[in-house]
Amino acid sequence: MVTVKEIAKLAGVSTATVSRVLNNSGGYSEETKQRIVELLDKHNYQMNVVAKSLRTSHSKTIGIIVPDITNEYFATIALAIENYFYPNGYSIYIYNTSEDPKKESLIIRDLESRGVDGLIYISGTMTVPKQVLKKNLPIVCINQREYMTDEFTVVESDNFQGGFIATEELIKQGCRRIVLLRDKRDIVPMNERLQGYREALIKYDIPFDSELVQHITFDAEHAAKCVRSLIQRKISFDGIFACNDLVAMGALYGLRENKIQVGNEVKVVGFDNISIGHYSYPTLTTINQQKEELGEKASEILLQFIEKKEKPSQSKIVLPVTLVKRETT
Amino acid sequence: MVTVKEIAKLAGVSTATVSRVLNNSGGYSEETKQRIVELLDKHNYQMNVVAKSLRTSHSKTIGIIVPDITNEYFATIALAIENYFYPNGYSIYIYNTSEDPKKESLIIRDLESRGVDGLIYISGTMTVPKQVLKKNLPIVCINQREYMTDEFTVVESDNFQGGFIATEELIKQGCRRIVLLRDKRDIVPMNERLQGYREALIKYDIPFDSELVQHITFDAEHAAKCVRSLIQRKISFDGIFACNDLVAMGALYGLRENKIQVGNEVKVVGFDNISIGHYSYPTLTTINQQKEELGEKASEILLQFIEKKEKPSQSKIVLPVTLVKRETT
Repeated sequence: MVTVKEIAKLAGVSTATVSRVLNNSGGYSEETKQRIVELLDKHNYQMNVVAKSLRTSHSKTIGIIVPDITNEYFATIALAIENYFYPNGYSIYIYNTSEDPKKESLIIRDLESRGVDGLIYISGTMTVPKQVLKKNLPIVCINQREYMTDEFTVVESDNFQGGFIATEELIKQGCRRIVLLRDKRDIVPMNERLQGYREALIKYDIPFDSELVQHITFDAEHAAKCVRSLIQRKISFDGIFACNDLVAMGALYGLRENKIQVGNEVKVVGFDNISIGHYSYPTLTTINQQKEELGEKASEILLQFIEKKEKPSQSKIVLPVTLVKRETT
Repeated sequence: MVTVKEIAKLAGVSTATVSRVLNNSGGYSEETKQRIVELLDKHNYQMNVVAKSLRTSHSKTIGIIVPDITNEYFATIALAIENYFYPNGYSIYIYNTSEDPKKESLIIRDLESRGVDGLIYISGTMTVPKQVLKKNLPIVCINQREYMTDEFTVVESDNFQGGFIATEELIKQGCRRIVLLRDKRDIVPMNERLQGYREALIKYDIPFDSELVQHITFDAEHAAKCVRSLIQRKISFDGIFACNDLVAMGALYGLRENKIQVGNEVKVVGFDNISIGHYSYPTLTTINQQKEELGEKASEILLQFIEKKEKPSQSKIVLPVTLVKRETT
């Protein structure tokens, strides 16, 4: 088998340069890289990262834990993380929890036994961070479900602000009785969006009616069912703030079934800004979360944490959200 | 640090049982597992898979290469693969190629250097399988873009049949001039869906008109643009077979802009059956691909390949597709 030294000789560069190319660590021209990669290919060079990770105690891997990779919102964040870490020479283990707390615990054990250098934990409970703390594994959380202590760094969207501007948009478009479709679980982002909703009602002197706050199983099917039920029970409303876009899709479906003109009789705002909202009918007004930036910011902090072995100084980074206005308002 | 032997003693089981629990390999009761897991946790046991993989030459990892994890179709397949391998003690590396052939080559080098036991390669070109063959790494492909040789096992949907039944559905609903929206790239699934389309026209004695076969950049935006352009150029049509659901969404959007009544004036069939089609307006008739089954079948074959070190005997497994009838036809 060919060695790094031989490749360096063939390429006419130092062994350090070949190592840097192998580790993707920069400090060489694109042309040099190309030449070295071709030689590595030609001579079928195989670097054994496994052996190397035992020598250096760095495995150059990180783990991502997500609730559901088939939800475009999470997949977009995960892709941004991969795009950040890959050029830095890291590979990504990805795990779906399917919201099963038992599986979450097992995943941590698995990641740890594989010697990952760090962890990005998306939209989970406190269970995992608490376990990880015991084990001194660098972790950055994206979105918090339960309030984290200062021991963890959280990157998240401004959910309060999102709830506020979604509701304000509906009010400005003339709505007075605004249904809030929220996840029935008592989790931080939902509670903060509700706070934003209440704050907007206060600002515009609209009374809060708890009957309009609907706690649902958080998917399109149950959203449609909830809208149907509100109509059957003759609860009047002229606006819906759906706390994510898939739920908004379900709401549109429920309204359509009842021949209610969306945009005229009832206005709707979603949350997340995933691609589905471009192609719904009517197209969906929503709150944009900076999904790529959530992934990138968390990655940047984690990489520093791993490489400088220093806990991040900030415990919370909040990214702003914006209104994306389309046809439903 | 606590050893397996000590844990076994504390749990009152054999060391072999503890090992089996650590490797997730079965052969113990749920209650025993629970007890052992609790002891492992309590004593903060850390198994070093990295060291172990050097001893056994199995890393208990597999790699998945996908074009785009934010497309629900691919994410659903990837999740099915994880759900198959995880209980077998394997972790998953996931890589997005973003359709960049250069990145594909680098990914292979990376996966190989990490000592993965096998690879599932989804909807890519022949480049990677050819590289892998040289290196004796077990691989199973899901969907082929270029025709594979018998050296590789491919699991795919019956694209010809899908094209046929999509077109037949439109014909049965009275369509005579059916637009085919296909990926402009010369790739196998598109060519086979086109063959199915042609076969259905022949069966019902409808002349083939090449003007109706539209080769587009394969996304919703370009589909909408294409529909707009057909209408402007006064090319008459009464049906659209869109070769995936996202493209179908774009087509619905383009028709709506032109105030064309979908389901009456123009009927539409998609392909894939992702969740978006449930919530479009009108809801989308489509061809269901068995996404979970594609992932499971490929996983089953790969696991056998890895553990029995025997090349799969079948080079091609084709899963049937079905029509999901909704409002657009």
